[in-house]
Amino acid sequence: MSKRQLRLGAFLMLPGHHVAAWRYPNVKKENLLNFEFAKQQALTAERGKFDMVFLADGPTAGYRSHAFEQHSTIRFEPFTLLSGLAAVTSKIGLVGTVSTTYNEPFNVARKFASLDHLSGGRAGWNVVTSHGIEAANNFGYKEEPLHAERYERAEEFVDVAKKLWDSWEDDAIVFDQEHAKFADKEKVHEIRHEGKWFSVTGPLNIARPVQGYPVIVQAGSSEAGKELAARTAEVIFTAWQTLEEAQAFYRDVKSRMDKYGRHPDELKIMPGVYPIVGRTIEEAEAKRRKLLDLIPESLGVSLLSQQLGVDLSGYPVDGPLPELPDVSEINGIKSRSQLVRDLAERENLTIRQLYQRIAGARGHREIIGTPEQIADQLQEWFENEAADGFNIMPPTYPDGLDDFVELVIPELQRRGLFRTEYEGSTLREHLGLERPANQFAKKTLV
Amino acid sequence: MSKRQLRLGAFLMLPGHHVAAWRYPNVKKENLLNFEFAKQQALTAERGKFDMVFLADGPTAGYRSHAFEQHSTIRFEPFTLLSGLAAVTSKIGLVGTVSTTYNEPFNVARKFASLDHLSGGRAGWNVVTSHGIEAANNFGYKEEPLHAERYERAEEFVDVAKKLWDSWEDDAIVFDQEHAKFADKEKVHEIRHEGKWFSVTGPLNIARPVQGYPVIVQAGSSEAGKELAARTAEVIFTAWQTLEEAQAFYRDVKSRMDKYGRHPDELKIMPGVYPIVGRTIEEAEAKRRKLLDLIPESLGVSLLSQQLGVDLSGYPVDGPLPELPDVSEINGIKSRSQLVRDLAERENLTIRQLYQRIAGARGHREIIGTPEQIADQLQEWFENEAADGFNIMPPTYPDGLDDFVELVIPELQRRGLFRTEYEGSTLREHLGLERPANQFAKKTLV
Repeated sequence: MSKRQLRLGAFLMLPGHHVAAWRYPNVKKENLLNFEFAKQQALTAERGKFDMVFLADGPTAGYRSHAFEQHSTIRFEPFTLLSGLAAVTSKIGLVGTVSTTYNEPFNVARKFASLDHLSGGRAGWNVVTSHGIEAANNFGYKEEPLHAERYERAEEFVDVAKKLWDSWEDDAIVFDQEHAKFADKEKVHEIRHEGKWFSVTGPLNIARPVQGYPVIVQAGSSEAGKELAARTAEVIFTAWQTLEEAQAFYRDVKSRMDKYGRHPDELKIMPGVYPIVGRTIEEAEAKRRKLLDLIPESLGVSLLSQQLGVDLSGYPVDGPLPELPDVSEINGIKSRSQLVRDLAERENLTIRQLYQRIAGARGHREIIGTPEQIADQLQEWFENEAADGFNIMPPTYPDGLDDFVELVIPELQRRGLFRTEYEGSTLREHLGLERPANQFAKKTLV
Repeated sequence: MSKRQLRLGAFLMLPGHHVAAWRYPNVKKENLLNFEFAKQQALTAERGKFDMVFLADGPTAGYRSHAFEQHSTIRFEPFTLLSGLAAVTSKIGLVGTVSTTYNEPFNVARKFASLDHLSGGRAGWNVVTSHGIEAANNFGYKEEPLHAERYERAEEFVDVAKKLWDSWEDDAIVFDQEHAKFADKEKVHEIRHEGKWFSVTGPLNIARPVQGYPVIVQAGSSEAGKELAARTAEVIFTAWQTLEEAQAFYRDVKSRMDKYGRHPDELKIMPGVYPIVGRTIEEAEAKRRKLLDLIPESLGVSLLSQQLGVDLSGYPVDGPLPELPDVSEINGIKSRSQLVRDLAERENLTIRQLYQRIAGARGHREIIGTPEQIADQLQEWFENEAADGFNIMPPTYPDGLDDFVELVIPELQRRGLFRTEYEGSTLREHLGLERPANQFAKKTLV
């Protein structure tokens, strides 16, 4: 296969990415925490030859939201769900969002190593930080940590995890039964990490992951996030509305990589895309309308407030956005807040129009149309240095994913943009990423 | 079924419980971190109608042990392995050891809830604390925590977890699609826990577990451990060498339950048993000898040192134990240290003889013989108030478990002591334990 290939993630958020997905007719209560249902979705994605399933996560139930009662916030925890999916799939990558804010590097590095062994090298880690007071209060803190501190901790956390994954060299396990030598201690290393945030001696109690490290995914689009991504990320999951924004981001991040000794191909930029697929454009439009009609006003305002980092519950819903504090004062996802503000200004939207615009995709790009129209829009970004692939966010499960796999994937395959069969067996192989060298292994002079 | 039934756990420690199991002829390197192999063992245990598989755990590689090179210490992490096994089994319980020392209650409660939903109600939690400086150093501590502090933290940790599991009442999810009401906020509770060790607001971000709580297992046999077990444990995994010791422990713990308003049947006492099964006694003895011959002297001394909490590496291996510090000065597993001391004194053993006695069972009871002889010994303890069942610790996998399932289980079934089919589908149902009431649900007056 010579032509550059799209990378695709199936962003598995049950019962769907649309904020009121649970109200959609084909969505059932008994499927909310149903492993068999989640398994069917992963098998559908694997049938579609997706590079990976992708799980979001956060450590709160959103209890303090005005719209708590209208929102489905319960979900499987990523390590447990991905491990279950590992056991019943054979090729597809398994990417979990795990926060560095209220976890210990030893515990997280160990679980990812375990998942990577369990799945034969299919694990990926979407590295995030946890913001918000509700999260802080679940872990003994009265105040939420500052944005800068969260990022600083995250960066050190990933460094410690990599050291732990490297603490067993690939050939450390000798297994010499005759001479009673299980491991070669010369090839197992205490990491003796002493940093600002962590002090960890090691070694880990599991062999080096099949992939060396799980694939490192990041989502941040702030200045700090872009720099961190250029240094360490292998996949970026990001949100853009327009080709120009996406191109600017793509150029910006890739151009920062050279100073870290990295080639642009070592990082795959995969914006989120929320597709509404119809056999005709009318069918797609009708689906979109049906989804919009499911959003209670209070839920829409609540979601918009969360995305902006500002409480809008006191303002007329059919009026414009009020004056907002500067984005620098938001201790949430700054880049998302800016994106939503830009959208409102560009299109001169009321609060209601604005929440309707983000209620499905939550700031990600919404694409609507026939399979050909969807493919056209993906292809445009892919061929114009705006994206290396996409994280697909179906409005509802199972319908939204079924539609994409049945209708859009074959169109992408016909155009030679997407694989018709897996070429390798690890997530790194799917994405065309090298297996990292071990930082503790002695280099052999050539 | 009227006759009281044995409860059986398959203690899945790969490649086996014998300290040098990895040297046994049928043990293969490629099965060390091989999910397919672990799956086959779980399926064998399920075919044998075991109540549960049981995973031990600890957060170190034993790197500072004198015998590090001779010991297999790498392993899957319990949540990931059990979740994988949940996906490929249908009845057997899934019990994981998870420490309260270097974890957060919100994270642990959430993962167990997720595992319980994923498995349809088959999760169990063996609650332990983590001792030792090597563990402490993996989590930012220069000193290991004191025994009393570890237990105090553990007790509060479990209380917080139970509150979190109860934070969603069983009927909190309304799923009223028409009126846009997903959850009833009156039935979802902030727990607002403020204690010495933890401050956690909640609620959890997953529905109440299928079983209410996962089954709570404990292993401690110290005074503090027994009291905690009488108050909160549903299964005790413990280690005894003689019928008399086991009976005394059984009586002691069960008699403490009344003051907590609990019936003795609400707690199942399941000592560990290390079985060496042969079709003849000679075959069994030959297996035992073969296993003993695999233990390098330094590994035996190291294991014994660890079990006693005292470094014996400087003493003549064919001499007696030296004078040891009082057990109260050991900051490890006090009860295990006492048990090994008692064994040495009772049978007047040298260091070598002593490590050979514990090298397989690690302080647990070793039973050797034909299937009938094994069954006799299990039955004796079961019918004389020493045990409600046993946690079976095969010397090696797959052979040791295969032998037990092929040879011993049928004999227990013939005697009417063990089920021939699962009667229920949750671990609580297997063990005959009630589903706990929700502490936050309003009681209805009758």
